[in-house]
Amino acid sequence: MQVSRAGGERRSNCPVACSLDVLGDRWTLLVIRDLLQGKSRYGEFLASAEGIPTNILADRLKRLEEAGLISSSQYGTHSRRKAYTLTKKGEGLAPALRALRDWGLSQFPGTHVPV
Amino acid sequence: MQVSRAGGERRSNCPVACSLDVLGDRWTLLVIRDLLQGKSRYGEFLASAEGIPTNILADRLKRLEEAGLISSSQYGTHSRRKAYTLTKKGEGLAPALRALRDWGLSQFPGTHVPV
Repeated sequence: MQVSRAGGERRSNCPVACSLDVLGDRWTLLVIRDLLQGKSRYGEFLASAEGIPTNILADRLKRLEEAGLISSSQYGTHSRRKAYTLTKKGEGLAPALRALRDWGLSQFPGTHVPV
Repeated sequence: MQVSRAGGERRSNCPVACSLDVLGDRWTLLVIRDLLQGKSRYGEFLASAEGIPTNILADRLKRLEEAGLISSSQYGTHSRRKAYTLTKKGEGLAPALRALRDWGLSQFPGTHVPV
């Protein structure tokens, strides 16, 4: 799986399959969601309601950066902490997130968009 | 994971998170893709270019039926073989699939929509 996620060997030339090689798990699109909502820091992602485990978060941030969907920069003068932002490629996922959100809103009673 | 996929405990009330509890892996949306393209039989899903393993396919069909996204019926008079179709709920994923397809087409050179 790491090979295809890193942009190597493909399962097929289907654009959905290639997308899922990068995005196809329970967590990655939640990090993209958080970034689209303006979150940028490790602690902010951790604080989201789903309680993403730290090892999964670190892995997904690394994979997303390798795949060119996010970029990172240090913030603070004496800090090794990073701020993450979506690249154009990552921002391009907004329509897919909206479509999944709309489907979820219609199918799972009691769900709502975070305020 | 089985609990949330089966519609039980939620990670949050975010519609994207609830959607990913059902759809968040590398294979499930490929089965939905195949169904949207008119495939309906086990052997047709197996024949798709990605080469889904039989145990994963059987598991995903079971989960999708439990989640109400597909329904199955026997076909043939002396056969236990099943034909699968999308329910309204499953058909509602068409916009999300289109959005993922469009993102993939724009990001992965050489990908194309199956003919």
